[in-house]
Amino acid sequence: MTVSNEVSVLDRLFTDGKLAAVCPSRIVLDHVTSRWGVLLLVALSERSMRWGELRRVVEGISEKMLAQTLRTLEADGIVDRAVTPSVPPRVDYALTDRGRELVALLLPLMGWIADNADDILAR
Amino acid sequence: MTVSNEVSVLDRLFTDGKLAAVCPSRIVLDHVTSRWGVLLLVALSERSMRWGELRRVVEGISEKMLAQTLRTLEADGIVDRAVTPSVPPRVDYALTDRGRELVALLLPLMGWIADNADDILAR
Repeated sequence: MTVSNEVSVLDRLFTDGKLAAVCPSRIVLDHVTSRWGVLLLVALSERSMRWGELRRVVEGISEKMLAQTLRTLEADGIVDRAVTPSVPPRVDYALTDRGRELVALLLPLMGWIADNADDILAR
Repeated sequence: MTVSNEVSVLDRLFTDGKLAAVCPSRIVLDHVTSRWGVLLLVALSERSMRWGELRRVVEGISEKMLAQTLRTLEADGIVDRAVTPSVPPRVDYALTDRGRELVALLLPLMGWIADNADDILAR
């Protein structure tokens, strides 16, 4: 990233030198950087998954948090829920185009975290 | 990002096809993607700041959350706390080299959030 790009990102984030409390970015930040939000997006970065797969792949997520986080990400247009009318109905969750854009920016961050987590916690 | 990079990030994140519940990455993820963690890192991306400046720039942060989040980021080696022995002592907070690496990955994500937040919430 060049310095000019950094400056322009900061220009978009700061208002009168402050990170404003009432700001759409804060709401979306909470949605997409919540622990379960990030982990679900990483899980879906590979392929679409069904409810039970997500529950298994994202270890430790409760039914309640899975439902709530998927609902938020679906409402935000980041995750798509596709129902196949079989008996019983089959429901698949997948990233939308917007979700893929977001995940392309999340993965380098997650890679850095994976590479540095042991060192950071060993301090 | 090339496809091979994406695959290698995913390889580092998944263990036996799962995002493991007990994993150093999850702990560090919670530290650096907490709402206040992200906002403090963005605030410090420009320059070092004193306590009162951070309190003012990151609108809405409480004294308690500022203290707690700075303590975590300092323990993780992401933020450095420098005391100048004046009367009263002056305390400055700045990103470490590791913190600057992390912020370089956070800013593109924050830029995307700033660009898309209005659209996402208008859905």
